[in-house]
Amino acid sequence: MAGTDHTRGALRPTGPRIVLVEPQLPENIGATARAMLNCGLTDLALVKPRDRWPNDKAVAMSSGATAVLDGAGLFGSTEAAVADLQQIYAATARPRDLTKRVVTPRQAGQEIRQAVAAGQRVGVLFGPERSGLTNDDMVLAKTVITVPLNPSYASLNLAQAVLLVAYEWFQAGDDTPPESLIMNGSEPATMTELGNLLARVEAELDQAGFFRNEDIRPSIARNLRNLFHRLALTEQEVRTLHGVLSSLISTRHKR
Amino acid sequence: MAGTDHTRGALRPTGPRIVLVEPQLPENIGATARAMLNCGLTDLALVKPRDRWPNDKAVAMSSGATAVLDGAGLFGSTEAAVADLQQIYAATARPRDLTKRVVTPRQAGQEIRQAVAAGQRVGVLFGPERSGLTNDDMVLAKTVITVPLNPSYASLNLAQAVLLVAYEWFQAGDDTPPESLIMNGSEPATMTELGNLLARVEAELDQAGFFRNEDIRPSIARNLRNLFHRLALTEQEVRTLHGVLSSLISTRHKR
Repeated sequence: MAGTDHTRGALRPTGPRIVLVEPQLPENIGATARAMLNCGLTDLALVKPRDRWPNDKAVAMSSGATAVLDGAGLFGSTEAAVADLQQIYAATARPRDLTKRVVTPRQAGQEIRQAVAAGQRVGVLFGPERSGLTNDDMVLAKTVITVPLNPSYASLNLAQAVLLVAYEWFQAGDDTPPESLIMNGSEPATMTELGNLLARVEAELDQAGFFRNEDIRPSIARNLRNLFHRLALTEQEVRTLHGVLSSLISTRHKR
Repeated sequence: MAGTDHTRGALRPTGPRIVLVEPQLPENIGATARAMLNCGLTDLALVKPRDRWPNDKAVAMSSGATAVLDGAGLFGSTEAAVADLQQIYAATARPRDLTKRVVTPRQAGQEIRQAVAAGQRVGVLFGPERSGLTNDDMVLAKTVITVPLNPSYASLNLAQAVLLVAYEWFQAGDDTPPESLIMNGSEPATMTELGNLLARVEAELDQAGFFRNEDIRPSIARNLRNLFHRLALTEQEVRTLHGVLSSLISTRHKR
């Protein structure tokens, strides 16, 4: 296809090449392109796709990731599709007849990240939907990637398999914190703001006769304070709760 | 659907419930069921699917994960689909108007694993394909799951989003080593077996006049030994290489 041969090798690769060997369904090629672009991968190679190529069904399933499809290389053999690469991974179930190093997608993502950062050209092979990679194709790979899955139902859809490898590649280079708090314009309330709200809540409850028994007052008040502190309220929410409180009090006064 | 209400709550949950809110394409419901079963999840809830349910297109795309589809609960509102649950996550882009805790799928997988192991009933909400979850649905969730992705193309297919959450759930409880060597019946060769092979290679090369210069012999021999040791050969492969060597020698003797 246009733009493949002269860009390869000339440009420093930014990610691994995804090589689909004899893919049967154009829909899966389109879904593969979408999953690749979701994870920042753009180098797609197709080895003898079953159906006509280019293919409208692939475009429809790619959901706008057409640049990946337009740039895809078309090859007559797996060897030709990986000829300029330096390290090959094969995504498949655990090999039965070959001695092979096997890694998880997470391990592969980290390894490929490092290799590409060091300037190496890396490819990952995926086999046909029905049968998977042949042993002859697997032999080309230094390492097999096998996804740990439910052993009684481990057959992944082709584009889903590509997604998991591409996802782990992306995560290996991503520094999003595992956990964060999105505030959307507001700030966390200060201890003073929370203390004022709680003092007001307690005073109003006192006036309303909520603490009927002075013995239980400390533990109930403590539980209420604990609940409010656990909430991690924003300034805005403290203001809203003051308004809620005022509204409830005014209703009581009207009665 | 059959078998949902009386199994929920009565049985200890084995994984989170996947809740698809107003899914548009039955194909995506089928692909979701397949991705769920790949990762050992079986509890699927559908809130007002656009198309008729049950649906043949969903069955076709489920690739045999029909038990998940057959057991799926059908609900008239998101609230009804999560009524018996204790912790809700919402899978969506970062919220814009709500103060919310946001985690990666990896963090969520670990948290949900722990919560389910402690006996809690957990659900994960996924919104309609085109629009995603509404703020009213997101409000039900304690935590938002946002997948770190290519910021210029971050829109995941619905079933792909379910796969990533389900995959991280499975990985959080899986103990597959990141890296292993599959031997398929053979054993790693011992140092003695490797040493014998290398001694034979060197002797034969010597006889063939390969080491023309005694000065370079040590470094060439060392590089050869290094190459063979790096291979991590199996016993079987050592035997094969002895055969290869014998064969090459016999050819030479015939010449």
